[in-house]
Amino acid sequence: MPPEAPAFVPADPLYATRVRESFARQGAMATVGARLSAVAPGYCAIELVPTPAVSQQHGYVHAGVIAMIVDSAGGYAGYSLFPATASVLSVEFKLNLLAPAQGERIVAEGFVVKSGRTLTIARGEVHAESAGRRTLVALMQQTLIAMHGKPDAPAA
Amino acid sequence: MPPEAPAFVPADPLYATRVRESFARQGAMATVGARLSAVAPGYCAIELVPTPAVSQQHGYVHAGVIAMIVDSAGGYAGYSLFPATASVLSVEFKLNLLAPAQGERIVAEGFVVKSGRTLTIARGEVHAESAGRRTLVALMQQTLIAMHGKPDAPAA
Amino acid sequence: MPPEAPAFVPADPLYATRVRESFARQGAMATVGARLSAVAPGYCAIELVPTPAVSQQHGYVHAGVIAMIVDSAGGYAGYSLFPATASVLSVEFKLNLLAPAQGERIVAEGFVVKSGRTLTIARGEVHAESAGRRTLVALMQQTLIAMHGKPDAPAA
Amino acid sequence: MPPEAPAFVPADPLYATRVRESFARQGAMATVGARLSAVAPGYCAIELVPTPAVSQQHGYVHAGVIAMIVDSAGGYAGYSLFPATASVLSVEFKLNLLAPAQGERIVAEGFVVKSGRTLTIARGEVHAESAGRRTLVALMQQTLIAMHGKPDAPAA
Repeated sequence: MPPEAPAFVPADPLYATRVRESFARQGAMATVGARLSAVAPGYCAIELVPTPAVSQQHGYVHAGVIAMIVDSAGGYAGYSLFPATASVLSVEFKLNLLAPAQGERIVAEGFVVKSGRTLTIARGEVHAESAGRRTLVALMQQTLIAMHGKPDAPAA
Repeated sequence: MPPEAPAFVPADPLYATRVRESFARQGAMATVGARLSAVAPGYCAIELVPTPAVSQQHGYVHAGVIAMIVDSAGGYAGYSLFPATASVLSVEFKLNLLAPAQGERIVAEGFVVKSGRTLTIARGEVHAESAGRRTLVALMQQTLIAMHGKPDAPAA
Repeated sequence: MPPEAPAFVPADPLYATRVRESFARQGAMATVGARLSAVAPGYCAIELVPTPAVSQQHGYVHAGVIAMIVDSAGGYAGYSLFPATASVLSVEFKLNLLAPAQGERIVAEGFVVKSGRTLTIARGEVHAESAGRRTLVALMQQTLIAMHGKPDAPAA
Repeated sequence: MPPEAPAFVPADPLYATRVRESFARQGAMATVGARLSAVAPGYCAIELVPTPAVSQQHGYVHAGVIAMIVDSAGGYAGYSLFPATASVLSVEFKLNLLAPAQGERIVAEGFVVKSGRTLTIARGEVHAESAGRRTLVALMQQTLIAMHGKPDAPAA
């Protein structure tokens, strides 16, 4: 995390459990082989290993798959600071693709920039890792909304 | 397509074949169950049926999966106008999520707004269809780049 | 307006007066020589005449000035549908610049795509007009927030 | 600048002069009272003092004026790395507004994230300064294009 990152205090001490349980309910993450690799207050990392199952036409990881993991990373960075009774939705995000996503591992990180009662602003970075080198492959800016009183899980 | 849509003339008469072959090489599209449903000069539609395999935590289609299909729809709308010797990459896109993506079918459409030699600007719409009703679930704005002299397929 | 535009019903029948009074309080609009040329439910147009006072380094209208008028056009398109007791703020917007902004007149139009209680999504188009021809010079996508119970005017 | 900022080497040793001369040709900057306060390779800062002449309806600095100065700051951050024979245009930018822009001084900073031959990606931050405190008021992500062989100044 950048040294300048604000120190966030989570509203719910069990935030990490809530994030992990919510992530486990995202069928889309399992489908593309993504796993949650880190959670901290206002921060989340999600990674995947490039395979043909997540490729675009040149064999790189599809820009949309990059969008999937960085949208979720930003969303869970925001959600980590929410009270236990709220859930999170993406209002919008913007993604720049900087370099082909290829290598041993793709790591998406979300960072909360500002956490508000209704809206949270997050930014995201996606790096490709290969032979110990990290290359920035995508940059994101995102708006999230807290749905207060709406449980994160679907109604049983 | 909107009545105001410009009438684009493709540089390559075999554009539809090129788009379909490129789409078939996108492993990520098969992984999320997406299929190419229409191609025209400056236009492309990609659709999928919602399943738990593409869901987020509330059971709706994941915003990132919406991003995947509308990014590809916009990309192929642009690519349909390229000469046969060029391939396409997304420079960036911005996606607003307007309503939960659920229903019988999710349809992403890409429309070229301006086609240039280097950069192409496209916009996208994603609708959810259910019981004969269409609901706009997402809106996209996108920048594409033409890679002249770079084949669309990975080197054999 | 596009034929497909939804027919919006304003919450406040005096919406046009509210929009015009709010516009008149935007000192920045007078500074760049912009004027409000049309208001309708979910729609607003703002225009200016290119002069060296709003130019960038090549002599075209500055991208930021384009952003100013289309941000306000989208904002007032949204605000036209708000109740009289709410004011509007831009949460974010994304602007693509398609062609140099030059000519006799620059017209920015904002269109509401979806109006919600808290968030409104608008899109914008900016055209340059010259010798009876219209050229699309910019495309915008925007998120607005309604501030309920917060008056539009600064406290007296 | 963030400690992680890459160390850029400008292609033209006279980059700062080129940036200052180009800025001086942007009539729009003088109109809103903006001044160039810093230039370094891959970095630029532009600031202004809030006045009613740049306000929106609540009396804060207009979001579009914020867009103007941060678009130029990002643009000149990119331009600082270009060869002397190229000029710069904004392809697109996305701006999140985080807090009302008010105070003694508004400072927009642009940082190059990736500099390529054709496209450059920059990000921007805008802070409001008041009584020695800095508040982040806006966050930007931007795509720039280098126009090789096109002079920065208008034809004489």
